[in-house]
Amino acid sequence: MTPYEFPLLIKQLLETAISQRSRKEIVYGDNVRYDYPTLVKRIKRLASGLAGLGVQKGDTVAVLDWDTNRYLEAYFGIPVLGATMMTTNIRLSPEQIAYTLDHSGAETLLVHTDFIPLIQDILPSLPKVKRLVCLSDDGTSPAGLDWTSEYEALLISGDETFEFPEFDEQTRATTFYTTGTTGMPKGVYFSHRQIVLHTLVVLSTIAQAGENAQFSRNDVYMPLTPMFHAHAWGYPYIATLSGWKQVYAGKFEPSFATKLALSEGVTFSHCVPTILDMVLNAPEAEGVDFKGWKFLIGGSGLPRGIAQRALARNIDVYCGYGMSESCPLLTVAQLKTDVLQNAVNPEDVALEKRLTPGMPILLAQVRVVNDAMESVPVDGASVGEVVVRTPYLTQGYHNNPEASRELWQGGWMHTGDIGRFDDEGYLHLVDRKKDVIKSGGEWISSIQLEDLISVCPGVKEVAVISVDDAKWGERPLVIVVEADPGTLLAETVREHLKTFVNNGLISPFAVPERFEFVETIARTSVGKIDKKALRKQYA
Amino acid sequence: MTPYEFPLLIKQLLETAISQRSRKEIVYGDNVRYDYPTLVKRIKRLASGLAGLGVQKGDTVAVLDWDTNRYLEAYFGIPVLGATMMTTNIRLSPEQIAYTLDHSGAETLLVHTDFIPLIQDILPSLPKVKRLVCLSDDGTSPAGLDWTSEYEALLISGDETFEFPEFDEQTRATTFYTTGTTGMPKGVYFSHRQIVLHTLVVLSTIAQAGENAQFSRNDVYMPLTPMFHAHAWGYPYIATLSGWKQVYAGKFEPSFATKLALSEGVTFSHCVPTILDMVLNAPEAEGVDFKGWKFLIGGSGLPRGIAQRALARNIDVYCGYGMSESCPLLTVAQLKTDVLQNAVNPEDVALEKRLTPGMPILLAQVRVVNDAMESVPVDGASVGEVVVRTPYLTQGYHNNPEASRELWQGGWMHTGDIGRFDDEGYLHLVDRKKDVIKSGGEWISSIQLEDLISVCPGVKEVAVISVDDAKWGERPLVIVVEADPGTLLAETVREHLKTFVNNGLISPFAVPERFEFVETIARTSVGKIDKKALRKQYA
Repeated sequence: MTPYEFPLLIKQLLETAISQRSRKEIVYGDNVRYDYPTLVKRIKRLASGLAGLGVQKGDTVAVLDWDTNRYLEAYFGIPVLGATMMTTNIRLSPEQIAYTLDHSGAETLLVHTDFIPLIQDILPSLPKVKRLVCLSDDGTSPAGLDWTSEYEALLISGDETFEFPEFDEQTRATTFYTTGTTGMPKGVYFSHRQIVLHTLVVLSTIAQAGENAQFSRNDVYMPLTPMFHAHAWGYPYIATLSGWKQVYAGKFEPSFATKLALSEGVTFSHCVPTILDMVLNAPEAEGVDFKGWKFLIGGSGLPRGIAQRALARNIDVYCGYGMSESCPLLTVAQLKTDVLQNAVNPEDVALEKRLTPGMPILLAQVRVVNDAMESVPVDGASVGEVVVRTPYLTQGYHNNPEASRELWQGGWMHTGDIGRFDDEGYLHLVDRKKDVIKSGGEWISSIQLEDLISVCPGVKEVAVISVDDAKWGERPLVIVVEADPGTLLAETVREHLKTFVNNGLISPFAVPERFEFVETIARTSVGKIDKKALRKQYA
Repeated sequence: MTPYEFPLLIKQLLETAISQRSRKEIVYGDNVRYDYPTLVKRIKRLASGLAGLGVQKGDTVAVLDWDTNRYLEAYFGIPVLGATMMTTNIRLSPEQIAYTLDHSGAETLLVHTDFIPLIQDILPSLPKVKRLVCLSDDGTSPAGLDWTSEYEALLISGDETFEFPEFDEQTRATTFYTTGTTGMPKGVYFSHRQIVLHTLVVLSTIAQAGENAQFSRNDVYMPLTPMFHAHAWGYPYIATLSGWKQVYAGKFEPSFATKLALSEGVTFSHCVPTILDMVLNAPEAEGVDFKGWKFLIGGSGLPRGIAQRALARNIDVYCGYGMSESCPLLTVAQLKTDVLQNAVNPEDVALEKRLTPGMPILLAQVRVVNDAMESVPVDGASVGEVVVRTPYLTQGYHNNPEASRELWQGGWMHTGDIGRFDDEGYLHLVDRKKDVIKSGGEWISSIQLEDLISVCPGVKEVAVISVDDAKWGERPLVIVVEADPGTLLAETVREHLKTFVNNGLISPFAVPERFEFVETIARTSVGKIDKKALRKQYA
């Protein structure tokens, strides 16, 4: 007889598609295809099957799988029990995978057959693990591990009328590990409430689309990021609540994924720039007009060339920004009609805006601040650290109080990214905080200086690092490899940079006075400039 | 150094439009026009001004105004203090207005000059009232009441950098009174959390639009319902979060509202059917193509004729369903592409669907149940009471435990409406619960029987009521006025109804066996069939 308070639980995302009678399908690869009522029954069978194996509220269940309907089911079937789904980053080294599985406390592992050798290797260092469930595409469980169950058999053993339990919306639903440049991966975690709110906030933002990134109940979703990566950016939850058709392509293979996307009528994918590039270059993509396919790009900056090639093929490509710590979405590059209408060349402006991380999504508070946590002015040149508040940020790192304190210094979540806002509200990222030069209270982007100096005639390669300075704290040091050794003057580079000062792109204070002309610049094993080594060398 | 938990507070709806640099305006009538930064500053001044007058967390502040920018500011400026905004239904009788104001505990009244005579009359019966703030369009405070302050002067006294306090998201934000058929109005109430969630859920639903009811950041909003009515259906909050242009037309006057809507480029309004009819008939509407104007209709069923006339003028008209108790939105009539594609005559089907209350909006759990709270089958004939769960339902009636218990019987909120779902997920309402005939465990709609019998040849007027029955509990009694007295047989009417049994429109059990042929049917003062009198007469 008491009112229902409606806690924000993941189970409640399963109601709408059914009540709105979605006739859409869930598709995995070539062979799996079913409807929404079946999805809900399979999730009930999974939850009930796991409960039957002994999984309880508070337990952690880890998943090692490619992008499949099983993963989608796990996104719901594990948290609805009050258990935590740990999405295992299977791209890490075996040692790191073992560390993350053990650190998460996972007692149950759902393991795709591709990872049998890996688990065989690391199982001795996973004393907490009690159960192994085999995920195979043919329903058999290969030898090599002592399986508790096979996934489809587990579902058959489950109850399709299982009633999802009700509990506090602050209950932890998911966890996964983020890799920094130093130390072991750190675990982030999200509650039911946070995931439901992320879902609603992203959908609410979609409702503001006008010029690009428009959605409807007819959209067809296919992730092109691995599903262990930051909840596949939240879209399996968003798509399920919305009753969209969903397509999962298994282990990413450009030809197969492109073919599947085309045959299933996919209209929305998200990925890092490289994957979009691979899709554009796939033989199946040759000569195809991709009109109606939206690509949300994140993870790293979208090179202009890839964006232009995608737009030329009628792909609606635009960027977003987020991170593991933020569930993940913080900003998205929706185009604004008034900005395009006021532009001399709307197409150029549209491309520039598509390449930015975009605008804060609804309810997201995104600030750019100096070390005193004061917002820096929006003047085209001032930069600061991007700090955020949204209703769905990790409240810390799992069992890591020191890193958690650092993450939430001053009551705002620190992204470690350096950026600025433009006049139209779009964020621009210029550097990572650890690479920025803090000079006399101003922050100078090493990457921006490198970009600008790289186009100075006579420069072959360039690196910019910070060096200690008695007066200013830090100053930039420019390390240059000349195209024609012995011909370039520091003053030439400085004059080159001053033209950008005049444009307002950098502040006068950012123009370096210290230069080193060298023959080679230290690089890491993957070819990136090794700033750590350079900083040591020029300390 | 602690993480920010991000309580769902109304103040947080004010951030996005600013951070996304909305260039849109807030417009009231002919003379008031300002931008979003000004809106936020004015809300800060209002909150700070009210705090200066002594308004505290937990207090109730009542508003008596037409649709104005001041009302929009009050939607934010009162709740951000932790005070409750009471939106006064100024269409009630003076006795009822006095009752609702006193029952709500309001100590502060914001009173438009039009209501000075009313307040003069009832003030003696409002012992709790301590402060009167004058809302006038010219900045003066007419004599007749002992004003504490004038609204614009209050804002000038306020601080535009006022920091909104932070408190529990369950804090009550709003209250207003709903009139039933019997007894005094009952107060419903909503928390900050509920209003934020209503906002996100409605926007998320918008993201699913495909065929109609599409929105973007370019929408221009103008309510055509009074703002005291169920949060103006939540749209002032939705529009502000979205950074839409907003237009307020003051006291509704068809010519002025239509002219203002056309000159300001309004694209979205909501109202009861009568208001849409008045807009269509306004001289200013003559010959105008209204393409781009969406009308969400609620409050009562939309007559087909009005819908057809609106569609002929290119108005995107569609229904929604909700009530004071539900914040209010529960369902909305978005069209589904697959339903239209499968239809022989898509235009007819589209019109039918636009006229339904629509589909449950995202996260809304809407069930049609029998007395045992079991869902009735979706078979085109079975009906039941509509009961709901959403994250934003009143948790009871203010200081009325008995009515609250009845409202939430069985843990679901009872709407008192009888309806059914169709195969495509659209709700259809057939009756009010108090008029339905409960017969042998089945519910028979009196209104549906009346509709069907009214088209039987020989019938001039008809009323259907329930009468007690020893075997079935209740049975329908048909009271008929014949077109040609003495010529119609009960069996003729029964045969007529059986054709609808064959169509599956009603169950065989619904066909009545008891008929009364009369000369006149009792009606109420406003011309409605007086079922109460009839039930007494035929008891």
